[in-house]
Amino acid sequence: MTTPTSVAAYAAPAPKAPLERTTIPRRELGAHDILIDIKYAGICHSDIHTVRAEWGDGGNFPIVPGHEIAGVVAATGSAVTRYQVGDRVGVGCFVDSCRECDNCRAGLEQYCTGESGNIGTYNATGRDGQPTYGGYSTHLVVDEHYALRIPDALPLDAAAPLLCAGITLYSPLAHWKAGPGKKVAVVGLGGLGHMGVQIAHAMGAEVTVLSQSLRKKDDGLRLGADHYYATSDPATFEALAGSFDLILNTVSADLDLNAYLGLLRTDGTLVQVGAPERPLAIAPFALIPGRKSFAGSMIGGIAETQEMLDFCGEHGLSAEIEVIGAEQINEAYERVLASDVRYRFVIDTSTI
Amino acid sequence: MTTPTSVAAYAAPAPKAPLERTTIPRRELGAHDILIDIKYAGICHSDIHTVRAEWGDGGNFPIVPGHEIAGVVAATGSAVTRYQVGDRVGVGCFVDSCRECDNCRAGLEQYCTGESGNIGTYNATGRDGQPTYGGYSTHLVVDEHYALRIPDALPLDAAAPLLCAGITLYSPLAHWKAGPGKKVAVVGLGGLGHMGVQIAHAMGAEVTVLSQSLRKKDDGLRLGADHYYATSDPATFEALAGSFDLILNTVSADLDLNAYLGLLRTDGTLVQVGAPERPLAIAPFALIPGRKSFAGSMIGGIAETQEMLDFCGEHGLSAEIEVIGAEQINEAYERVLASDVRYRFVIDTSTI
Repeated sequence: MTTPTSVAAYAAPAPKAPLERTTIPRRELGAHDILIDIKYAGICHSDIHTVRAEWGDGGNFPIVPGHEIAGVVAATGSAVTRYQVGDRVGVGCFVDSCRECDNCRAGLEQYCTGESGNIGTYNATGRDGQPTYGGYSTHLVVDEHYALRIPDALPLDAAAPLLCAGITLYSPLAHWKAGPGKKVAVVGLGGLGHMGVQIAHAMGAEVTVLSQSLRKKDDGLRLGADHYYATSDPATFEALAGSFDLILNTVSADLDLNAYLGLLRTDGTLVQVGAPERPLAIAPFALIPGRKSFAGSMIGGIAETQEMLDFCGEHGLSAEIEVIGAEQINEAYERVLASDVRYRFVIDTSTI
Repeated sequence: MTTPTSVAAYAAPAPKAPLERTTIPRRELGAHDILIDIKYAGICHSDIHTVRAEWGDGGNFPIVPGHEIAGVVAATGSAVTRYQVGDRVGVGCFVDSCRECDNCRAGLEQYCTGESGNIGTYNATGRDGQPTYGGYSTHLVVDEHYALRIPDALPLDAAAPLLCAGITLYSPLAHWKAGPGKKVAVVGLGGLGHMGVQIAHAMGAEVTVLSQSLRKKDDGLRLGADHYYATSDPATFEALAGSFDLILNTVSADLDLNAYLGLLRTDGTLVQVGAPERPLAIAPFALIPGRKSFAGSMIGGIAETQEMLDFCGEHGLSAEIEVIGAEQINEAYERVLASDVRYRFVIDTSTI
């Protein structure tokens, strides 16, 4: 087949404008590139932040969001070795990086310290100087080294959100060694949190959900949580004081993190994976008597993302999703903002 | 000799009142106790906070401060095995703990999770229900398990500050693995910082001082720093971006910690050892893209404090001090608040 250089997509034409159907250019297939026939693209809260220009750096409109991409290889460049036409593949939050810095060499491409950092799957500028466009689209051309293999055990639609939500939780769980004997709390049971609960449970940790209310308790327990507490109840913070080795905070809203730091054991770590724009107030006395840490973590490297996908394949873990047509994207955004989704919208890109 | 039960001391009779000479009770020597003839007591900024009742919990006046204590064993209880009369010993920030919690069993008595936590050397209540009084005094009775041996290589006066300032820096340097190949920054060259520079250098790390001005640069380099930068110069934050594995912040004043977090490498940690009362504003985006941590650390356990003293003995490290008579304590407090000391006041307790 010949590779298409102009493809259908859904784009935000300007900040805060509704997304609409358009066509975008895709580069011609390079020697190391694969062409992906996109089947599904998850809707991540970051997509909404970006098209609403809520994250400091503005945005290069039109923006085609989408960095939870699952599809099938439709063509391969002449030097491609990893993939063949027909392979089930995914693309996550970045499509390139400098490949030369210490972090890239160490498989921490997400923390690339090259001049441009990692090259975002959308709203970034590629190596060729052209804007990158994301997964709300029918096709994507990407260097094979920045694609991932999706295990046969996982359906493509429910696997798509693993490429961001899954790895965002898997990476800190692996880095801070969640596993048997460890007590892990996940703050917030949304798109991120519902993956964190499943993965932490599969790693063997004792998992607690800390959610504003008990509204989703049945879901939490079904997904693998051992305990489920409402943070609106002050008794929760007394009952669980000094309990956890690791707390993953998936909530972007302002929380009193000092109260959550009080739930950590000595040497425990609270990892922020949701990203509030405003600084958080951290009391030194919440950290010092107990050698506690407040840390951040951002997605994962390519090798670790593959490891996560393989882990999810082995354990049969994927996102709980609501599949929508492209014409429902704007409505879905409103529902994400209202936390009205269990737990991830995934766009069927055949409807674009 | 018979053990004295009433001894001379300097005490703050009430919040913010000047310290004055008084007498205080010391308990009779128990089977596991040693009587210490105190020779020197360092003045720590915490002493000032406490007698001025600036730390939330008020204070149980009169307060006899002093938790950087060096002296000589003058008597031993019937069951004492570790020390003999004449031994050179020190006492740090606590004189007891529950001895039963996981942390006490693990040698992390400073983080004792027993009902009372660790029992402070002063302004606390001992196991016998009586108030504890610190080192601004001629004698102290303490359980031998909470005393430390001061190496012969170290003078008692300059060793006294190791019991708080020394261990406060040694413990995080050891925990976060300062050593060859690691770049460590020490923020602030005061009582804490000047010990941090010496210890980090002796551990083999590449050491940078980050100080408001270059005023103490000569001292910093003499103490072992490889580099010395002024934080009042914005160019410092550009030049050193992404440089450090570990930053120890000894400064209690409000700093823009997000700027300092920008100086960390991927996976780097900023450890707060100075203790501002107010919460610090931490931007999630200063932590997330680089998996950075903001942590706290508090003194050290008994075994680690002994390890620190032995390390300082081997490497000939001790505090740079100004020895004063007891009648100069109030004046010294003012000078500490004005940062007018290089680098620690030590009271010659024979003048009490």
